[in-house]
Amino acid sequence: MKNIRIKVAYQGTNYCGWQRQKDSLGIQGELEYAGQKVFASKIDVTGSGRTDAGVHALGQVANFKVETTIPIDKIPEVLNNKLPKDIAVLEAVEVDEDFHSRFSAHNKTYRYQIYPSRIRSPFYKDTCYQVKSPLDLDRMKKEVKGLVGVHDFVGFMSSGSSVKTTVREIYDAKVFEEGDLIVLELTGNGFLYNMVRIIAGTLVDMGRGHIGDSMVDILESKDRGRAGHTAPPQGLFLKEVEY
Amino acid sequence: MKNIRIKVAYQGTNYCGWQRQKDSLGIQGELEYAGQKVFASKIDVTGSGRTDAGVHALGQVANFKVETTIPIDKIPEVLNNKLPKDIAVLEAVEVDEDFHSRFSAHNKTYRYQIYPSRIRSPFYKDTCYQVKSPLDLDRMKKEVKGLVGVHDFVGFMSSGSSVKTTVREIYDAKVFEEGDLIVLELTGNGFLYNMVRIIAGTLVDMGRGHIGDSMVDILESKDRGRAGHTAPPQGLFLKEVEY
Repeated sequence: MKNIRIKVAYQGTNYCGWQRQKDSLGIQGELEYAGQKVFASKIDVTGSGRTDAGVHALGQVANFKVETTIPIDKIPEVLNNKLPKDIAVLEAVEVDEDFHSRFSAHNKTYRYQIYPSRIRSPFYKDTCYQVKSPLDLDRMKKEVKGLVGVHDFVGFMSSGSSVKTTVREIYDAKVFEEGDLIVLELTGNGFLYNMVRIIAGTLVDMGRGHIGDSMVDILESKDRGRAGHTAPPQGLFLKEVEY
Repeated sequence: MKNIRIKVAYQGTNYCGWQRQKDSLGIQGELEYAGQKVFASKIDVTGSGRTDAGVHALGQVANFKVETTIPIDKIPEVLNNKLPKDIAVLEAVEVDEDFHSRFSAHNKTYRYQIYPSRIRSPFYKDTCYQVKSPLDLDRMKKEVKGLVGVHDFVGFMSSGSSVKTTVREIYDAKVFEEGDLIVLELTGNGFLYNMVRIIAGTLVDMGRGHIGDSMVDILESKDRGRAGHTAPPQGLFLKEVEY
């Protein structure tokens, strides 16, 4: 039995998210369905974590155990031949039998894309959050730095998830321009439910002057009501998972 | 009666092209349909030229004549409210009554996007031509320069179009890297049917070593058989039309 780790990119627009739902396979289910065709046996795909409906991945990591004689470097291609075009297996490696995509993960990087424009773009409709009002980019660049370090992010979590602790460490947090987009990137040891989207919404609210408080003050208040709105899913990308 | 010039962006993936077909509105028809709702009268939209099914525009230009009291600077927004999300009117200006989007155009710029990768990308599936074999970028950069000037491009035209002359002038032609893409940009006084896609395919065939001849030799031969394949529509963007 081989334990195979894969790196997966997907555009989440047409999916219910990573996880299988009652009426929809989800990305996970699509991978399992393709795997069943390729390996002629049922596989269980474990991801590094869930992504919500409409959220994308540039480098989701998952693993599954299978008996196969297919050479490891051919696995991306054979899986991609059976997958929908909006999902792509980028690489596959064989790992120790005790490797687990979720429990073994050390840190994750998320990317959030904002399109600051009064007029919408056909090319960004599924992959960016369009913000029509002017944004104070300097303030966003400054305030995002307040997230770095070990903090209780309970004020940046949507209800509906049960976690043992709401303390997380953010290693790197930055806002920068890339072409005509504003990009937020966060690297941390873990993220609470909707945490990146609430941080993105808070930074946008700061950028348009709707929130005057500093990020540090909002963090210390531990009050969801002091943070900003939850930015929409289509701007969010799981960029990288490190082990 | 006002003559209104609009700049339009669209993702052509889900359309039969610019022009209305029997069973499909096309981009032109979508604009006329939205215009009819906004202006409460039928409008005829004239474009700077057609784009084929699957081809996109960053800056298509069109004009139409209408009686309206809607302020000109509100027109993009009111049209966008009635248009599908993959079409956007970027700007509107009032022009002389004799302005004609096609006849008044001085030059056009096309962009063609190549994604050089063995593994496909979910994010480029509708907007790039994926090329799996390695490409000699230096050769492509050098050969593209052979297109500049006044030439008979009859060897770079698909049959099925009737034109008075196949001579066109290319003012600027370049191939460059942009992030993980290879981009071809051509500016000229006009383009024959499929000309940009045949040039893109010829450059790709040169880049992978399938064509040894120089661009200048192929041009001079006036032989479609000496040029390369027709690159697929999804990589092509009408970038700009100048008047």
